[in-house]
Amino acid sequence: MDQSYVIGIDVGGTNTKYGIVDRRGQIVKSGSIKTGKHEDVNNYLDELAEALGEMMDGTITKDHILGIGVGAPNGNYYTGNIEFAPNLPWKGVIPFAQLLEEKTGIPVALTNDANAAAIGEMTYGAARGMKDFIVITLGTGVGSGIVVNGQLVYGHDGFAGELGHTIIRRTNGRICGCGRTGCLEAYTSATGVARTAREYLDMRPNEKTMLRNIPIEDLTSKDVAEAANAGDEMSKEIFEFTGRLLGEAFADFVAFSTPEAIILFGGLSRAGDLIMKPIRESMEQNLLKIYKNKVKLLFSELKESDAAILGASALGWEIR
Amino acid sequence: MDQSYVIGIDVGGTNTKYGIVDRRGQIVKSGSIKTGKHEDVNNYLDELAEALGEMMDGTITKDHILGIGVGAPNGNYYTGNIEFAPNLPWKGVIPFAQLLEEKTGIPVALTNDANAAAIGEMTYGAARGMKDFIVITLGTGVGSGIVVNGQLVYGHDGFAGELGHTIIRRTNGRICGCGRTGCLEAYTSATGVARTAREYLDMRPNEKTMLRNIPIEDLTSKDVAEAANAGDEMSKEIFEFTGRLLGEAFADFVAFSTPEAIILFGGLSRAGDLIMKPIRESMEQNLLKIYKNKVKLLFSELKESDAAILGASALGWEIR
Repeated sequence: MDQSYVIGIDVGGTNTKYGIVDRRGQIVKSGSIKTGKHEDVNNYLDELAEALGEMMDGTITKDHILGIGVGAPNGNYYTGNIEFAPNLPWKGVIPFAQLLEEKTGIPVALTNDANAAAIGEMTYGAARGMKDFIVITLGTGVGSGIVVNGQLVYGHDGFAGELGHTIIRRTNGRICGCGRTGCLEAYTSATGVARTAREYLDMRPNEKTMLRNIPIEDLTSKDVAEAANAGDEMSKEIFEFTGRLLGEAFADFVAFSTPEAIILFGGLSRAGDLIMKPIRESMEQNLLKIYKNKVKLLFSELKESDAAILGASALGWEIR
Repeated sequence: MDQSYVIGIDVGGTNTKYGIVDRRGQIVKSGSIKTGKHEDVNNYLDELAEALGEMMDGTITKDHILGIGVGAPNGNYYTGNIEFAPNLPWKGVIPFAQLLEEKTGIPVALTNDANAAAIGEMTYGAARGMKDFIVITLGTGVGSGIVVNGQLVYGHDGFAGELGHTIIRRTNGRICGCGRTGCLEAYTSATGVARTAREYLDMRPNEKTMLRNIPIEDLTSKDVAEAANAGDEMSKEIFEFTGRLLGEAFADFVAFSTPEAIILFGGLSRAGDLIMKPIRESMEQNLLKIYKNKVKLLFSELKESDAAILGASALGWEIR
């Protein structure tokens, strides 16, 4: 039996999750630490390296680990740096891969979390055997990992694939967290869906809807999904609106790289057909004729709790 | 000396240009026929094959030709078909490579004209040494050839890279030749510029402009460029509008593949700074912060007709 393993690390704004993963994509051991506990990244990495060390003191030792893959916001594959990540405690440019490699003695590769999800999908999930696909992550933000000819698209600077920040509304567009207006993310992230709900509630004060049972400032995309599933008309319309915009955007993405499939990943994709049906209709309606009925729309096949670790770990197999 | 040659063929909406190319990238013989003369593609190909035959009756004979590379609108590299090309006289799916191979007895490979231009630019032009770049062709239509990790992006079906048919105006967009509305091509092709000029003339009947000296139905982008260069205010504004839209679109393209450079090619790029200055300003203004001041905007370094023939011919060397 193959005694090789990799470690996957998912650096999130709140928690850092890590696990040892085997060739078949099984997480054989895992754990987590708080990301925000240390203002100095060196102290954080000391704690992380110690935690990894403890994980490797059983039957699986450091000698069995081929590499460590890290998924982190604003992670740059070429440099191994995390650069100006707004949701992490460490400011500026952090040479994360280099520091972790020094502290563990194991080769480290790093990329952003959406790219990690794409590699995970290609290695263990819905994109196995595909050479051209796009993973769209619908979470707090909208991220993307693009694969062309079997390779992640990192671009000239290592930061390619920010499809959440392509412009879907050029006129009177919503303000986005990036400082611009009209970004796809401002409409189709989980927070975007909640924003749409608040807009609808505000614009239609006389329309009955279950959404009014929830304090407006607490309203989340999950509430909207639950109400839609219970038959609430306004909530269904909110998902139709969200799906329609995603479908419009996907039609343009197809004109770029013409993937075999676009794979949905992340919290909002749990809405299932509520979001998928309008995306499919809108995408097909908006596609250039030569692309119609050619592109699969799929959900991620990775278990959500494991996906981030699996995605990051997949990078570990590719080192050298 | 190496007695091997290839033939490059550029199928344009108006003319089909062809040439015999040697190992060093020199076009040693060339010619052209009218693309639109024959409604039946078989008659067109008979004329083309005859013209190629005449070209090969000197010191370079058919035995010296290793292959024929074709660049054509909606050309599919994988199948060798031209499929539903709106600007060509032949409708539906045309097995162009197969038919030309039957008529000439020489192996034929085919891709779209913009991909051929990108290969030409990578081999002989402004993209030498680059692994990530996009060529945008501004001619009768707007085409694109995208290179990622040193490879042409053909996509899953062979039709990737139709950036002229991404949507730049989602509300009240112009009708495009593809049957949809708001495509970049409807605004920023040579015909799009002429359309803008006619719109401006119609909307501002009292504004003095040199453009009124030309019969409105004869007005071309070349006329607008000449008037702008002579100081005509409306004409300068037309190029600013065109460049602004291209810059908006380019900012989204950068979020996709983050190229080292975007290279302008084709008739409209002859307008020089008239078009480049507003593109650059608009692109930088619209870019996501992490991409600002990173992407070069360049003009093609190849003579227009040569680039298309050379790019297409490069495919000829690769056959078998």
